[in-house]
Amino acid sequence: MSISCLSASAAKALDAELMSAGAFSIDQLMELAGLSVSQAVYREYPPSQYSQVLICCGPGNNGGDGLVAARHLWQYGYKPTVYYPKPSSPELYKRLCKQLDDLDIPVVKSHDSNHFSQLLRDSKLVVDSIFGFSFKGPVRDPFGSILAAIVESKIKVLSVDAPSSWEIDEGPQKEGPLKDFDPDTLISLTAPKPCSKFYKGKHYLGGRFVSKVITKKFNLSLPPYPGIDQVVDITNKPLSMV
Amino acid sequence: MSISCLSASAAKALDAELMSAGAFSIDQLMELAGLSVSQAVYREYPPSQYSQVLICCGPGNNGGDGLVAARHLWQYGYKPTVYYPKPSSPELYKRLCKQLDDLDIPVVKSHDSNHFSQLLRDSKLVVDSIFGFSFKGPVRDPFGSILAAIVESKIKVLSVDAPSSWEIDEGPQKEGPLKDFDPDTLISLTAPKPCSKFYKGKHYLGGRFVSKVITKKFNLSLPPYPGIDQVVDITNKPLSMV
Repeated sequence: MSISCLSASAAKALDAELMSAGAFSIDQLMELAGLSVSQAVYREYPPSQYSQVLICCGPGNNGGDGLVAARHLWQYGYKPTVYYPKPSSPELYKRLCKQLDDLDIPVVKSHDSNHFSQLLRDSKLVVDSIFGFSFKGPVRDPFGSILAAIVESKIKVLSVDAPSSWEIDEGPQKEGPLKDFDPDTLISLTAPKPCSKFYKGKHYLGGRFVSKVITKKFNLSLPPYPGIDQVVDITNKPLSMV
Repeated sequence: MSISCLSASAAKALDAELMSAGAFSIDQLMELAGLSVSQAVYREYPPSQYSQVLICCGPGNNGGDGLVAARHLWQYGYKPTVYYPKPSSPELYKRLCKQLDDLDIPVVKSHDSNHFSQLLRDSKLVVDSIFGFSFKGPVRDPFGSILAAIVESKIKVLSVDAPSSWEIDEGPQKEGPLKDFDPDTLISLTAPKPCSKFYKGKHYLGGRFVSKVITKKFNLSLPPYPGIDQVVDITNKPLSMV
């Protein structure tokens, strides 16, 4: 049985449905999504070897998932640093940042390419929570330079929901410095996106909150999660479009 | 090293601090607390043997933790039923109930002692999320009769934060039908409460969200959580008052 992919527009509709008819708050969904991300990081990159994690957060909900993941990673014993050059203004994001402050997790809120290069050198892993399912190119700075520096550094990368810069329905950039951006690990949230068919690395699914009602409405086929895990390994599993 | 207990008034202050200076929303905290509860249930009462779980929810936040736990338990493969005879009116509680509706989890919203007795007979486990750290006796009906029926049924019980009817700072009821209420498992949230010193059963701690700032402010000594677990086994560990 293949796993359903959600196109950019279907993912947007499902997200809206979760928060309207589904009655989830964004706080709840972001907490569970970020928790999934933290579990995928722990599974692939244990703190004994990858303590120094650089979490690059974009300005939207994908970035918020990264902020939540950073907090959980600290609780697991990592020493995360958050790079958040375009901090969002809604209160939720400010609260998530305050929660990081209270754990002494550094949150860098402006871009400086030298500083970023230094942070990359000091890190063992990048969590790419820059762009999610609502991304549409082109990639604008500072995120273009940030992603190019990540590619050049050859550091391990775990991407959240989609590799940032990949078109959600189409796949990797076809030209330019980001055409070689190919993360080592991907955690898709709720369901994989169509661009996942171009992805050959380690692949997790997270976001264990899909209801029976939504599964039916969106005609989803999703794999079971084992035990109490908030992630399931779907590496190389067949995908289908819905 | 002993584990700090939080008196009723200190627990109230810590909760307020988490949501003011700590910048957590109640949605976030309840999600993480309910997730901890679900993990303790899974650890002690696996779904292969305890699929039929009756989750008894009180009118306050402790009941909300139970509503969240019910959803996660369903995701783990349990068949939960929620008994919620005094449903709370704030929107958060209505949303948590809608999330259960969308999983076809029965939520019973009025009390009938015959119906409750039948549900007890059909269940393998009761999750007692009736009263938490803000409880002050006497126990009022319907919760007095509900707890008495649970005691009489001799069903396994896991209590959330404190055994319901126990005075938070003082311990079990000294007389009446509830003086024998002694759950098999207790999951304390954030930190144990002073009544825990009268408790001799299996004991977990959950609520892995305490910040460095709060640990310091409340002079807490808490055990480390293993790996990515949202609970830690503290059975028979020495407790100290703060």
